[in-house]
Amino acid sequence: MAEKVTPRSEDYSRWYTDVVQRAELADYSPVRGSMVIRPYGYALWENIQSALDGMFKETGHQNAYFPLLIPLSFMQREAEHVEGFAPELALVTHGGGKELEEPLVIRPTSETIINAMFAKWIKSYRDLPVLINQWGNVVRWEMRTRLFLRTTEFLWQEGHTAHETESEARAETRQMLDIYARLAEEWAATPVIRGRKSEAEKFAGAVDTYAIEALMGDRKALQAGTSHYLGQNFAKVFEIEFLDRNNELQHPHQTSWGASTRLVGMAVMVHGDDQGLVLPPRIAPHEVVVVPIARSDAAERAAVIEAAGRVRDELAAAGIRVVLDDREEVTPGFKFNEWEMKGVPVRIELGPRDLAEAQAVVARRDQPGKESKQAFPLTGIAGAVREMLDEVQEALYQRALAFQKENSHHPASYEEMKDLLAESGGFHYAGWCGSATCEQTVKADTQATIRVIPFDQPDNPGRCIACDEPATDEVVFAKAY
Amino acid sequence: MAEKVTPRSEDYSRWYTDVVQRAELADYSPVRGSMVIRPYGYALWENIQSALDGMFKETGHQNAYFPLLIPLSFMQREAEHVEGFAPELALVTHGGGKELEEPLVIRPTSETIINAMFAKWIKSYRDLPVLINQWGNVVRWEMRTRLFLRTTEFLWQEGHTAHETESEARAETRQMLDIYARLAEEWAATPVIRGRKSEAEKFAGAVDTYAIEALMGDRKALQAGTSHYLGQNFAKVFEIEFLDRNNELQHPHQTSWGASTRLVGMAVMVHGDDQGLVLPPRIAPHEVVVVPIARSDAAERAAVIEAAGRVRDELAAAGIRVVLDDREEVTPGFKFNEWEMKGVPVRIELGPRDLAEAQAVVARRDQPGKESKQAFPLTGIAGAVREMLDEVQEALYQRALAFQKENSHHPASYEEMKDLLAESGGFHYAGWCGSATCEQTVKADTQATIRVIPFDQPDNPGRCIACDEPATDEVVFAKAY
Repeated sequence: MAEKVTPRSEDYSRWYTDVVQRAELADYSPVRGSMVIRPYGYALWENIQSALDGMFKETGHQNAYFPLLIPLSFMQREAEHVEGFAPELALVTHGGGKELEEPLVIRPTSETIINAMFAKWIKSYRDLPVLINQWGNVVRWEMRTRLFLRTTEFLWQEGHTAHETESEARAETRQMLDIYARLAEEWAATPVIRGRKSEAEKFAGAVDTYAIEALMGDRKALQAGTSHYLGQNFAKVFEIEFLDRNNELQHPHQTSWGASTRLVGMAVMVHGDDQGLVLPPRIAPHEVVVVPIARSDAAERAAVIEAAGRVRDELAAAGIRVVLDDREEVTPGFKFNEWEMKGVPVRIELGPRDLAEAQAVVARRDQPGKESKQAFPLTGIAGAVREMLDEVQEALYQRALAFQKENSHHPASYEEMKDLLAESGGFHYAGWCGSATCEQTVKADTQATIRVIPFDQPDNPGRCIACDEPATDEVVFAKAY
Repeated sequence: MAEKVTPRSEDYSRWYTDVVQRAELADYSPVRGSMVIRPYGYALWENIQSALDGMFKETGHQNAYFPLLIPLSFMQREAEHVEGFAPELALVTHGGGKELEEPLVIRPTSETIINAMFAKWIKSYRDLPVLINQWGNVVRWEMRTRLFLRTTEFLWQEGHTAHETESEARAETRQMLDIYARLAEEWAATPVIRGRKSEAEKFAGAVDTYAIEALMGDRKALQAGTSHYLGQNFAKVFEIEFLDRNNELQHPHQTSWGASTRLVGMAVMVHGDDQGLVLPPRIAPHEVVVVPIARSDAAERAAVIEAAGRVRDELAAAGIRVVLDDREEVTPGFKFNEWEMKGVPVRIELGPRDLAEAQAVVARRDQPGKESKQAFPLTGIAGAVREMLDEVQEALYQRALAFQKENSHHPASYEEMKDLLAESGGFHYAGWCGSATCEQTVKADTQATIRVIPFDQPDNPGRCIACDEPATDEVVFAKAY
C-alpha cells in the first residue's frame, strides 16, 4: 500500500515532495539539479501542453524549433540580458573530442538565437507579424532546486513574436498573459492575479514584464507564467529591420512569453491534501477510475468485472478519460488508497449488490469520507459522471478562490504587514511609492517581494507601505517560490 | 515568386537543399551543425509525431522525460556503448560560473540515464514490463551535416523497455519496428525493407539491431527507424534486478528504439520533384489549398471569395486540413507556384465562371500539367476531395514502390554489382557468407554497406557475392545516407 505522506500542516515542503514522489509524478535523478518526469506526471504535463498549444494555434501562432546550443557571444549582445543570465549558464567547451573555439551555451531562453534568425527572415512589413512558439527544454544552473518548481533543466514553451508597431506588440503581450490566466483558472482551477512586474523583478532585457501569480497552500506566491514586451531591444542588437508601409527601415517591436512544467507543481500545491494529489478533472490523466468490488465466487466476479468494463466503455465513448482497475493481486482498499494518492477526481465502485440494483457507488476525491458517496443508476451513468466532473472542477476553483481571498490582506500599517507575513504569508495589497529602496526595505525586513502591480487598481493607491510617501500604485507583496 | 530550385536530375543534393529551404521547411542556423526547423517543417514533424505517438500509446507505452545532461561516467559503464558514442559527445564542463567536478555529456541517446532510473523502480516481476517513450532532443557531434538527415542536434523519440523474458523483449523489438514500417508506408507513402543489421552496423551496446531502409530518389538508402534488442547488457552494468515468479533475482531483458526528424528529409527525397515538395496527404500540414480566381470587379470578387470560404468550411468540417489563400497582393499564378513548392497535395481553383457552373477546378500536385485538372461539382465536394486525397496517398506509395522495384537488383556477379553501384546505386540483394572481411571488401570497393539482412529470406541464399563461399543469408547492399 502507498506509504502515508507527511501531513501538510506538519511540514508543507516535505508534504509536497512526498506527494510528488509517491504519486509517481517525478523522481530525483542522479544528475545534480535535474529531475525525472515519470509517466503520470508527464501525462499531466501533456494535458497542460495540449490546452496551451490549442490556444496558441487559435490565436495564429505556429510552432518551430531552434538550436539548443547558442554561441556565448550571442548571449552577450544584449547587455541586461547577459547580466541576468550569466550566473546561470551551462557551457559546452568540447565537442567531438576537440576543444571548441568559442564555448556554446545551453539555452536558458532563446531570444538571442531566435532573433538572429528573425534578422534573416524579416524584410518587409508584409512579413509581419511573426508569431512563433517553441516547445522544448532549457537549462538554468540553480543552486537550490525543488521538483517541478525549480530545476536546472526544465520543459517549457517560449513564444517569440515580432510586430510592426508598439501597440500591436503590447496587445500581443497582454493576449498571451490572458491565455496563461485561462490555463491556470479554467484548466488548473487556480485563481491568479494579473499584473506588471517592478523593474527589479522583470525579465533581463525586457521593457515590461507581465505575470500571473497564484497563491499556494502554504500562503506563498508562485509565478505561473510571464509575458514580456521587449520593445526594440533585441531587434536593435540583432539588426532586425523591415521596410515599413512608407518604405522606411524600422526595427520591429517584439514580445516573448513562457510557461513551464512548474504548472504541474502549482496544481499539486494548490489542491493536494494529506491523502495525496487532488487533480482538477480538465488536466487529470484519468478523470475517473472504475474499481470492481468482486468477491471470491467466480461467476459473481466475472459478472462484476464485465459490468465494470461496460461502465468504462460507456464513459470512454462519452469522451471521459477513464481507467478500469481490474488488478486481481491487490484489494479494493489498496486501490482506493492508490488512486486517492494519484488524485483521480472521481472513483466508481461496482459490487455484486450494486449490480443487482443496477447502480454504482460514486465518490469524489475532493470530498473524502463515506458521507459524500452517492449511488448513480447505471443507465445514463456517463452523463451523470460528466456533470459531476464539471462540479468537481468548479468546486476546486471556488475552494482555491476562497483560500486566496481569505489570505489576501490590505494591511493598515507596515507593522501589521510584517507581522502577518511572518505569521502566515498571503498576498498583501499595499501602496508603493515606486522606489527601489522601499521595495528592497520590504524584502530585507520580510523576504516578501512585489509579485505584481495588478492591472486592477483602486481609485487611490494611498500611501507607500514602507515610507508613507504618496503611492503611485497599489502592489501585491508576498513571499514567493 | 518562389525562385526555381536546381533540377533534381542535375544535382540531387543541391535540389534537396534548395527544396528544404525554398519550401521553408528548415534553414541553416549560425550554430555549427544545427538547423532551424521552420513552422512548415515543424507542422510536418507534428503530424509524424502524432501518428507515432498514437501507435505507441495503443501498444501500451507511456511518455516520460529524463535529464538532458548525463554524467560522463554513466556513458563509460557499457564498454561498447561508450566506444560507439565517445567521438560524438558534447561536453559541459562549466555550470553556474564554476568548473564542474565531473563533466556532463549532452545525451546522444538516453540508455544510461534511463537505466539508472529503472534500477531504482524495478524490483519485482510485477513491475514489468516497463514501456517508456521519450520525445526530445539529442546531440551527436557530426562533421558533415545535411538539413534533417544529419545534424549535430536533432529531435527524435527514444523508446526504452524492460521485460521479464528474452522472448517478450524480442517481440517488443519487432513490434516497434513494424510501427516504424507502418509510419513509413502508410503515412509517408514510402516502402521499406525490414531486417536485421550486421554486427558492423548495429547500435553500440545492442545484441541485435533491426532497421527499416528506404530508397531515396538518388538511389541511395536511408535508415528510417531502428529497434534494438539490448539483451541484459545495460541491466547488468546498471544493476537492474527483479524478483521473478520463482522469487529469484534476474536481470530484465531490454529494448530501445528510435525515429527522428530525418523522416521529414525522407519524405522530401522520395516524393519531391523539380517544382518542389510533393507531400503525402496523411502527413501534409495542409492537404488542400483553395485559391479564389477573382478579377477586378468588386461584386464578382466578393462572390468568389465568399464561395471559396464556403468550400474551405465544408472541407474543414469533413476533417480535411485545408487553407484558403485569399491574399490580395499576389496573383493566382504566384500562389500556384508557392503551394506547388510547398507540396500541398490538392489545389482547388474557383473563379466566376466555375461559380456560375456550380463547380470548382481541382488539381493534383502529384500529376502536374493542365491535362490532369478536373471539374468537381460544388455539391458534395468534400467527399470527392476526400476520395482524391486517398488516391493521391496510394498513388505516391505505388510510384515509390515501382521506383524501389526498378532499382532493386539481384546481381549475378560481384563485377555486375560493382558496375551497377557505380552507375546508378539501388538496392542489391546478394548472398553473404557472414564474414566482416567480405563486408569490408564490398564497402572499400563500392562504398556500399549491408543495409539489412531482410526478414524475408529466399530458400537458398546462394553464394557470397564477395568470396563465393556458401552464403548464410541474402543481404541488401546499398550506398547510404
